[in-house]
Amino acid sequence: MAETLKEVGEFGLIRRIRELLEKEGAERSPDLTVGIGDDAAAFKPRPGYEILLTCDSVVEGRHYLPRFMTPREIGRRAMVLNVSDIGAMGGRPRFALVSLGLKKDTSAGVVEDIYRGFLDELNPFGASIVGGNVTASANDEFIDITLVGEAREGRVLRRSGARPGDIILVTGCPGASNAGMQLLLNGLASADNPLVAGYIRPVHLAREGAAVAESGRATSMIDTSDGFLGDLGHVCEESSVGAELILERFPISRSLRDAAALLGKDPCELFLGTSDDYELIITCPPEHVEAVRSAAAVTYAGPLTEVGRITEPGKGVRLLRADGSEEVLSAKGWDHFR
Amino acid sequence: MAETLKEVGEFGLIRRIRELLEKEGAERSPDLTVGIGDDAAAFKPRPGYEILLTCDSVVEGRHYLPRFMTPREIGRRAMVLNVSDIGAMGGRPRFALVSLGLKKDTSAGVVEDIYRGFLDELNPFGASIVGGNVTASANDEFIDITLVGEAREGRVLRRSGARPGDIILVTGCPGASNAGMQLLLNGLASADNPLVAGYIRPVHLAREGAAVAESGRATSMIDTSDGFLGDLGHVCEESSVGAELILERFPISRSLRDAAALLGKDPCELFLGTSDDYELIITCPPEHVEAVRSAAAVTYAGPLTEVGRITEPGKGVRLLRADGSEEVLSAKGWDHFR
Repeated sequence: MAETLKEVGEFGLIRRIRELLEKEGAERSPDLTVGIGDDAAAFKPRPGYEILLTCDSVVEGRHYLPRFMTPREIGRRAMVLNVSDIGAMGGRPRFALVSLGLKKDTSAGVVEDIYRGFLDELNPFGASIVGGNVTASANDEFIDITLVGEAREGRVLRRSGARPGDIILVTGCPGASNAGMQLLLNGLASADNPLVAGYIRPVHLAREGAAVAESGRATSMIDTSDGFLGDLGHVCEESSVGAELILERFPISRSLRDAAALLGKDPCELFLGTSDDYELIITCPPEHVEAVRSAAAVTYAGPLTEVGRITEPGKGVRLLRADGSEEVLSAKGWDHFR
Repeated sequence: MAETLKEVGEFGLIRRIRELLEKEGAERSPDLTVGIGDDAAAFKPRPGYEILLTCDSVVEGRHYLPRFMTPREIGRRAMVLNVSDIGAMGGRPRFALVSLGLKKDTSAGVVEDIYRGFLDELNPFGASIVGGNVTASANDEFIDITLVGEAREGRVLRRSGARPGDIILVTGCPGASNAGMQLLLNGLASADNPLVAGYIRPVHLAREGAAVAESGRATSMIDTSDGFLGDLGHVCEESSVGAELILERFPISRSLRDAAALLGKDPCELFLGTSDDYELIITCPPEHVEAVRSAAAVTYAGPLTEVGRITEPGKGVRLLRADGSEEVLSAKGWDHFR
């Protein structure tokens, strides 16, 4: 019964998507002057706000696993990683553009469910899909999303503001997503395992990011989409600083410890390594830690852990152990070509 | 000698792209507050301007043919189609985000040349690439571009403003791109054929589009990326109108006539049919045709031909022949899944 894209055609599909967005999407924002259905969308920017632009793509098999995820979960996941990027700058999502590369024998209903996944993440912000395109891809399906956000002028929080002496804070427990994926791929856990669930249905902390940025007390922020060490490395590189991490402070959850045992891995390596979690790394001077905590706590109930501090540049990222030994860590995040 | 992406890695590639953009890209715009190298880019919108958003993706083999095109030409073509969309709304390009899906054995130099192609089209506008991502794709390479433009508030020109009685104008000779591609694929012409050259190195009319929009005299505008009839169909649908076209007025170029003979096709069918040219279809009341011509003529030296007029809805798009016969055309543009 399910109609394939070959049967409904590009324009038929676009019509169905438009209908779905009108019915199930957020109410049209008054500052959107041209929505879907033209060569480009248009909006009037709000005075006093900067515009944020981010894009991220996911490729079937590489970034999502259709055999373990429903189309709606695939859509949610693809949108979450973009929402997280906007939040990590201190902004709120407003408008999305979606490019899909789809096989001809994909059913139109599957595409609609992917869009429902997008809306699950956009609707709570009143954000809407204002454009995009669908194209045929012979082998690899892909989803590429551009998300446009806004942040109050002067409150955009960059990677490059970390200063020696700043405290390094991290939300939640990075590494969980990778551990969940490994458990899933190795048949060691099912969808009711919290790490597997976290991998399939990740949660962004965009509201917390925006609140922290608006507090004006943090010096830098980034989301952990490349893994804790990879992303802390980005902060160090862009801020021209080093960092020291205190191993015994790592917020290793019980679930991550259990997963590490099942996978035969060191839980600290899972914490540090490549993993596309959407936690936030935040730096701020010691005297502002409480203000940052208060800002995040309005919507966030999870742990915000001090895991180390920013140092002068030159020594890279060092790991300090309880026994006084230390190690220089090489900052390697998730690299798509290696 | 050429290093592959597997050898340079994702972050190595990103570093090379950033260096190339700093060296060969447009000078950094003062309203860009965060450029490449963060979770998102940020800019301060100019007061009195609306923001335009468009995205379009091209997939290897389907939208571009690496065996006939250099990487730089592939980059130019992918950017031209986005620049054209911004121009067709009456805007000027400002910032681009680029997502690339690349095979691991692609050389980093090829990627740099694709980026040079992007810059060839962006630099003349002082527009810059402010973000994006690269990801591995196993089989099909793709380029997905989001282009952000701006247009003076209230001067954005939509598809939906055409009114019965308006004149339909078209630039150049749509259909040329498809004919060029067919000649190329069938080995009937080489790169010095003007239609083949036009297919490989298309030219946008974004400056003309912006000038026409700013004149305030046109009622609708669209670029012919789906083919003349497909795009006129979009205008009719969005404007809830019909159209009549006068066959003998079609601006069939000598080259298109020659190509039609070689391909054994009717030149008028090539003119009407699916083809990704980047000409503009413009509608305006009869008394404003001269003003529209004057606006376009500041930068445009090609033909701007009156090919028909907008009619009341209900009769679709009709083709009138010199012998008094007429035919209802079914508006079918380039459909990616058929």
